[in-house]
Amino acid sequence: MSVVPTGGTLGILGGGQLGRMLAMSAARLGIDAHIYAPEENSPAARVSAAFTCAAYDDAAALKAFAQSVDAITTEFENVPARTCEILAAFTPVRPHARALEIAQDRVAEKTFLNEQGIGTAPWRAVTTAPEMTDATAAIGLPAILKTRRLGYDGKGQARIMAAAESDQALADMKAAPSILEGFVAFDREISVIVARGIDGAIACYDPGENDHEDGILRRTTVPASIPAATRDAAYAIAEKIVRSLDYVGVMGVEMFVQSDGTILVNEIAPRVHNTGHWTLEGCAISQFEQHVRAVCGWPLGSTERHSNAVMTNLLGAEADDWLALGNAAQAVHLYGKGASRPGRKMGHVTTLSPKT
Amino acid sequence: MSVVPTGGTLGILGGGQLGRMLAMSAARLGIDAHIYAPEENSPAARVSAAFTCAAYDDAAALKAFAQSVDAITTEFENVPARTCEILAAFTPVRPHARALEIAQDRVAEKTFLNEQGIGTAPWRAVTTAPEMTDATAAIGLPAILKTRRLGYDGKGQARIMAAAESDQALADMKAAPSILEGFVAFDREISVIVARGIDGAIACYDPGENDHEDGILRRTTVPASIPAATRDAAYAIAEKIVRSLDYVGVMGVEMFVQSDGTILVNEIAPRVHNTGHWTLEGCAISQFEQHVRAVCGWPLGSTERHSNAVMTNLLGAEADDWLALGNAAQAVHLYGKGASRPGRKMGHVTTLSPKT
Repeated sequence: MSVVPTGGTLGILGGGQLGRMLAMSAARLGIDAHIYAPEENSPAARVSAAFTCAAYDDAAALKAFAQSVDAITTEFENVPARTCEILAAFTPVRPHARALEIAQDRVAEKTFLNEQGIGTAPWRAVTTAPEMTDATAAIGLPAILKTRRLGYDGKGQARIMAAAESDQALADMKAAPSILEGFVAFDREISVIVARGIDGAIACYDPGENDHEDGILRRTTVPASIPAATRDAAYAIAEKIVRSLDYVGVMGVEMFVQSDGTILVNEIAPRVHNTGHWTLEGCAISQFEQHVRAVCGWPLGSTERHSNAVMTNLLGAEADDWLALGNAAQAVHLYGKGASRPGRKMGHVTTLSPKT
Repeated sequence: MSVVPTGGTLGILGGGQLGRMLAMSAARLGIDAHIYAPEENSPAARVSAAFTCAAYDDAAALKAFAQSVDAITTEFENVPARTCEILAAFTPVRPHARALEIAQDRVAEKTFLNEQGIGTAPWRAVTTAPEMTDATAAIGLPAILKTRRLGYDGKGQARIMAAAESDQALADMKAAPSILEGFVAFDREISVIVARGIDGAIACYDPGENDHEDGILRRTTVPASIPAATRDAAYAIAEKIVRSLDYVGVMGVEMFVQSDGTILVNEIAPRVHNTGHWTLEGCAISQFEQHVRAVCGWPLGSTERHSNAVMTNLLGAEADDWLALGNAAQAVHLYGKGASRPGRKMGHVTTLSPKT
């Protein structure tokens, strides 16, 4: 139950834009950030008091890092289990390794969710052709084949519309352990940004409604167009997840809302989440500060929002015309990533309007 | 008219909390901050990509700093004129040296304001006993004797309630050039945070109403309790000041509002200002980001506020019980200054409420 004091140091694994926004929120509370990342050019390092550039399997660097900070968190879920083990021997790591491990593996994630009585799309673990045949028969088509690990933003995924496409889709996975997920009909995708403190207190931000393009988040709108009962059911699911995991920190929970109001969980992200970026302007206390408060052992802050918000990602070259972005009453965030690449998240803009 | 691009670097003179908040706002726009300050332990340096720790008269260090950044600004007005000269030979310095010089000297400041037809308290420059006698006769008592330079937060000031106190007050100034200011009756102190871009565009935030304790700002409340006509007159004064100075950046203008609505200017601060900290939560674009936009040659952002706000400074030991601060729906800012000292600004909290 150790607490990171103001004037202390929070270690952050990962040097991307999420680590950057976490570091700045830590700084608001007078807490220094120490970034650990293998990439020399890490946007988060440029706003942080310290930076260790080393591999996630460099035991000596990990030990020195852990000994120089008061607690450790992460901006991404794919931290190797061994990395967490090394770090946790010296310093509290929040969220804990098991939460990361569950989120790293789509089969473990869905197994965990279903065990909690939380609905998901129908799914089967598949690696071999016979498993694929069985899974297709059980789930039906169309369906989507995904790697169990390391897929994001639509990468490592194949849609299977007809049985004839199954063999090729499986071959493309190159024997990587995979999961076949059934398509579910839904009206909208929402996400709940939920936080849990070391004292067990839980707080949720109002759900945002997400629009994707080409498998990448384009826009989150708050409030979502859902009735209060659905919102409360979404909160209950998010709360059950973090409570049953004894989780500490912020988690993003993506959910499908079906036409009858049934909620299925699509994915959990044991970290701050792109669909929560709107909280930077929409609330007095953002998801980033909330995560810092939680993992540093501070009481959670209020999740109240004062405004409606629309957050739009700037992908690839959309961020290049940055001067034009300055004209509107929009809050602009540019991540300092250098050259844009198609589909790469380079920044985002948030537009506020009076709360409804 | 050079523009600092996203990915570029803004140099900031000064390493305190204002520089820290400026650096973080630059980072939001993908602009690196390079802090220049003589203090090894500079809170701003710990959130910045680069830090030069050197004296303000170190010509070699200043030159190297200027050549490594795309534009230079400052978190404080007392930058030596020679420092600005050295820097400006290599890189745009915004705001320009003359704005700083005027704000450094209470006589130059009031002379400038009066030349623009802007009212101030009655004043006289005084250094000698005969000047003091003349000034007292002209202005009347009570009055306040201040050093012309380098006073802040009530330091370097003496109230003179009766003629018998004049000699001692003047002696305490140790022959430092001073100014005698008459007391003016006023209903409230307000401040306008005004910004001017390199294109000449001007934008004001809603005036805040300020409460002081022992000469130190305690609280700013927005909106101020003033009629719209007074607010508009306050805007007109702030706009006249920045226009007539050909100013670029954010300026804080402290004003007294008298019972008949007359506005007198108390002080101008050619920088982001403590009475504008509420904009961090009260607006989508804060005074810090606005200043960065202005001095980097970007279009100004909107100054619209979405909420009412009360900003309260945390002075001295008030910031020590930081865990207790986490309970409320308040945004907490702690400046990372280390040990608290009585009266020292250690942080602030902002509370929002629905806009009226």
